[in-house]
Amino acid sequence: MKESWSSLDTLETNFRPLVVIELAKGTKEETIEWFTKRIVDKKANGGAQLLIKPLVTENGDENIYLVGASHLRLLLGAETVGLVKECNDNSMRAFTYSSRKTFKDFADDNQNFLTMSECQYIIKHELENLRAKDEKMIPGYPQAKLYPGKSIVRRLLTNGILVQIFPLHDREELKKLRHTWYGQVKIGYQPLDEIRCYFGETIALYFGFLEYFTFALIPMAVIGIPYYVFAWEDYDKYVMFATFNLLWSTVILEVWKRICAVMTYRWGTLLMKRQFEEPRPGFHGVLGINPVTGREEPVYSSIKRQLRIYLVSVPFVCLCLYFSLYVMMIYFNLEQWALDYHEENKSSFSSLMLYVPSIIYAVVIEIMNRIYRYAAEFLTSWENHRLESSYQNHLILKVLVFNFLNCFASLFYIAFVLFDMKLLRQSLATLLITSQILNQFAESLLPYWLQKRHMKKMKKRMHSLKMDTDLSLVEQVNSEKEMGTYFGTFDDYLELFLQFGYVSLFSCVYPLAAVFAVLNNITEIYSDALKMCRVYKRPFAEPTANIGVWQLAFETMSVISVVTNCILIGMSPQVNALFPDSKMDLILTVALVEHLLLAIKFVMAFVIPDKPRDIQIKLAKLEFESLEALKKQPEWTACGRDAVESCARIQTKSLLFTL
Amino acid sequence: MKESWSSLDTLETNFRPLVVIELAKGTKEETIEWFTKRIVDKKANGGAQLLIKPLVTENGDENIYLVGASHLRLLLGAETVGLVKECNDNSMRAFTYSSRKTFKDFADDNQNFLTMSECQYIIKHELENLRAKDEKMIPGYPQAKLYPGKSIVRRLLTNGILVQIFPLHDREELKKLRHTWYGQVKIGYQPLDEIRCYFGETIALYFGFLEYFTFALIPMAVIGIPYYVFAWEDYDKYVMFATFNLLWSTVILEVWKRICAVMTYRWGTLLMKRQFEEPRPGFHGVLGINPVTGREEPVYSSIKRQLRIYLVSVPFVCLCLYFSLYVMMIYFNLEQWALDYHEENKSSFSSLMLYVPSIIYAVVIEIMNRIYRYAAEFLTSWENHRLESSYQNHLILKVLVFNFLNCFASLFYIAFVLFDMKLLRQSLATLLITSQILNQFAESLLPYWLQKRHMKKMKKRMHSLKMDTDLSLVEQVNSEKEMGTYFGTFDDYLELFLQFGYVSLFSCVYPLAAVFAVLNNITEIYSDALKMCRVYKRPFAEPTANIGVWQLAFETMSVISVVTNCILIGMSPQVNALFPDSKMDLILTVALVEHLLLAIKFVMAFVIPDKPRDIQIKLAKLEFESLEALKKQPEWTACGRDAVESCARIQTKSLLFTL
Repeated sequence: MKESWSSLDTLETNFRPLVVIELAKGTKEETIEWFTKRIVDKKANGGAQLLIKPLVTENGDENIYLVGASHLRLLLGAETVGLVKECNDNSMRAFTYSSRKTFKDFADDNQNFLTMSECQYIIKHELENLRAKDEKMIPGYPQAKLYPGKSIVRRLLTNGILVQIFPLHDREELKKLRHTWYGQVKIGYQPLDEIRCYFGETIALYFGFLEYFTFALIPMAVIGIPYYVFAWEDYDKYVMFATFNLLWSTVILEVWKRICAVMTYRWGTLLMKRQFEEPRPGFHGVLGINPVTGREEPVYSSIKRQLRIYLVSVPFVCLCLYFSLYVMMIYFNLEQWALDYHEENKSSFSSLMLYVPSIIYAVVIEIMNRIYRYAAEFLTSWENHRLESSYQNHLILKVLVFNFLNCFASLFYIAFVLFDMKLLRQSLATLLITSQILNQFAESLLPYWLQKRHMKKMKKRMHSLKMDTDLSLVEQVNSEKEMGTYFGTFDDYLELFLQFGYVSLFSCVYPLAAVFAVLNNITEIYSDALKMCRVYKRPFAEPTANIGVWQLAFETMSVISVVTNCILIGMSPQVNALFPDSKMDLILTVALVEHLLLAIKFVMAFVIPDKPRDIQIKLAKLEFESLEALKKQPEWTACGRDAVESCARIQTKSLLFTL
Repeated sequence: MKESWSSLDTLETNFRPLVVIELAKGTKEETIEWFTKRIVDKKANGGAQLLIKPLVTENGDENIYLVGASHLRLLLGAETVGLVKECNDNSMRAFTYSSRKTFKDFADDNQNFLTMSECQYIIKHELENLRAKDEKMIPGYPQAKLYPGKSIVRRLLTNGILVQIFPLHDREELKKLRHTWYGQVKIGYQPLDEIRCYFGETIALYFGFLEYFTFALIPMAVIGIPYYVFAWEDYDKYVMFATFNLLWSTVILEVWKRICAVMTYRWGTLLMKRQFEEPRPGFHGVLGINPVTGREEPVYSSIKRQLRIYLVSVPFVCLCLYFSLYVMMIYFNLEQWALDYHEENKSSFSSLMLYVPSIIYAVVIEIMNRIYRYAAEFLTSWENHRLESSYQNHLILKVLVFNFLNCFASLFYIAFVLFDMKLLRQSLATLLITSQILNQFAESLLPYWLQKRHMKKMKKRMHSLKMDTDLSLVEQVNSEKEMGTYFGTFDDYLELFLQFGYVSLFSCVYPLAAVFAVLNNITEIYSDALKMCRVYKRPFAEPTANIGVWQLAFETMSVISVVTNCILIGMSPQVNALFPDSKMDLILTVALVEHLLLAIKFVMAFVIPDKPRDIQIKLAKLEFESLEALKKQPEWTACGRDAVESCARIQTKSLLFTL
């Protein structure tokens, strides 16, 4: 084996490690040989044409490999994944190797044309799309079946032969980023472009949204403070606050779309989306012809997928929702029982018993959330979505509905069944504040502390070994491979989504919620930044053009909040006092106001354009050029379609749930 | 002059007249010379490069001209307008002259590759885009000012020098079409593809929608009949009928989008939309650079347009709506007064007086509608929209809102203020049936009869003149130029829209409405077909990919109908009897049901994909190829962008109201 590595070394003298592959200890020699050969092999032979190097660890094991690629290979890979870069004329265009000279900052000797995270993304893409040809199984592991078109890396991962793949940190860059991001005490925006360069668009967009959302909440918070300070309980003031909130939430969500379009245009992902349509690595099916690209790839009947969604997933989710409501009712019964017991006995034991139902309920909810999350992931994976985005959307929708119910069902019950506004305000405040404190602690501070302790231990061990070969790299890889894995922005968005719920759903009952949300989000930015830079492995960059299904989720929440706020205001004693004779008039008035507000919301969402005018023009220009190019190339329309090398992703919104 | 005509004649020996231009009698010679020269002139010199021939009429006047074009010119024009045709491999592609060989049925000597209506559309497009260069005025008419970029034809029309431009009928084809369309008594679908070939996509799509809508109403009608026959007045049955109606209306509107996509893909217009972005002929502005295409064309600030819309048009519309409501209130007061007067006097004069308010109101409404329509057209034109579609959408929205109010305000008043269900049912039936009968009569039967009388006169006169040169053509032109002009599908859609309102808004009060609607629509198909073939001049074909803002209008109506039906059911005595103790419970239940129904509607609209899967794939394939073509042409991305000859239309939905 050793010879082949050295022969590879000569291909590229300055091998730059980008991605780490950790195989299971004791992986069979023939498996390693086959796998590395496939990685190194030429594209024409079905390989990934990357570079790979073993990392010699302290105990001489050879289970960690460093993957890199030649500069040329990365440029070709950038074309394959459809990377969009800025041209010399300041327009954004899909990078192609043949037109490389027209791109800004491109020079044949400029290794920094692609950022490190882009290189790592390209390598990940190439590794994941390394597919089985005619192998029936992974050599050395007859139980790990393969069929043509199956992603090799995926099979190795599911069989435990491959432990993990992760990109390496760039210590210099990270240090700089940490400094500008949260290293100095200053008032200012986050360095979103730098975050995007280092962590990729998905994470930068999350931080952008977090920042934007915090700013957007400030007016609500500012208006909310006097309500608390002066204890305003007058009907007209509450109504004004609620109305402002409801319209404001529509405005901020619409404006976010525009800001998001500006950012992602600058990053190139607004255009990138349509560039490729690779099936997600977990997608399986019989090898067939893709009707769009005409290329051979796994194909899976969309009718089967629809059946799985509507006949299995949907009923399952409904059952879970029902079960969750059932548990909530048991909790309320238990609480009632504990209250009765306490009033009967009045002992210290009975007063302790008062807390038991809440504790049990909290524990049960946590358990349910975890089991459900696991089930949702399994189900969505089993639905076998072709595109990663489609998979994510279905998963998010499933988890969202369940979490929404778990979080807010008890508040709805208190508000609209028990009619206890005092208890509602109290539970709302308790839930909001405790969940925020717990989240920040469990999410970043605790892991950070654990990580620090672990690092100290590691360092000591390292120093005692006193290794001299390329110590720093080995050290880096060893410490990073022990770090936790960041599983995407899902939980972070979910937290914001639930926070938005607390702020908007019952905003007229507890105007101070916005204040707490703003305070929380300011510290959240720092703790999330800390989490990204210090606690977790570097995640792979994921290009994205918007916050996807979360936009819809936030919009739905803001529609629901119109309904809840109108009902709450209608139930308030002040409003009831206005209609002393007729409850009916009251309800009709409330219903009328609600419908009016909803209508205004929809009109506003319709009238405010989703993209600023200059972005619209830039997009139209690109489309125009693309169509012109097609016109100028008649040979292309007629023939040569089989020469296609790269690929496009369908971006029609309606495709989201059908493909 | 005569020489120049004959020299043109030699260019194309078999001149086929396609479009007729009628100039005002006594138009100055120099104007005619200049205008015809511009039409005949080479493209490079800013002309339209078409063929033109004077038509010698009975009294020797030379004010009617026939326009044609050489086969080559039409093919190049087809590329300019972005016509989409079927290729040899059954895919739809934008026609380009250089790739002409790959298109189905193309042969250099096949004059039928382009249909006659397509040729006429191309000629119209070329004529309308004949723009002034450095002329300061129309020669011979110093008051008709011109500036660079101004459409010449538009200026001639507004100054009355040009009376009209219209395409000629193809008598053979029309006869065939009439036969298959309504000539034989048979049960079957309309020949939509033939209609499209003859009249263009907009009209074919209207007839397609009319047919689809009629079929879609049949289930409602079938379910509605027993309610009438057995006089079912039970609560549960009414609820079921209303619920079915509400969900059904969502389904039919969603399914229509899919059917529409299939049709317009087959016709090529689904792809055509994005091909060009020519400003509408009425658009004016200073000559500038289009930021998308980089070409010189009139430019108008979108901020100015927004200001005009929001500061002038919107307040004006609101004022008109208020005025219309005010008139309605006067009507109800008058009616009350007439009723009181009749009860006081009980004379035959007083019983006659009972009808006076209705008659006055009907007349006033008709007058208001006409004045408002005129004002709306003026305002929308003054808003100076860049795209014809944008102009149409704004006009339709304005007229729609006003017509909706005029038609339904009195019904709403009867239902929700007077609470008189019997009167509501009666007014609904009267309004629906009389409006249908009147419409059919005024729209097609009356004009047809007038047309027939006129034709007879014409024929007599013709025969008395006994001309011998090319009699049939002169005869045809002379008879067609006297026919009425078809002003687009607007009124036809409006009629359907209001019908949909009668059927759905109060469906639970009058289930028989759907039956009348179905019966009306069946005859409507025939009378509209008669109207198109016999009464009006042939209209220019207008490519379109969907029914545009009407889809939104119908969807909005179906949302409003959920609200009205829920309220009506809630007000019914049967439902009230179910909640004997508490009005409050009743209203809350109704509100809950309403919100549930609305939620279901939105989920359904979201879940049903707008385009069938095979169309999605075909569109994705084309996009994929277009992007690939751009990739393959690096020289293109880098330079040569100024060589662009044709143009694209921005189709982003959000652009609709901003450009």
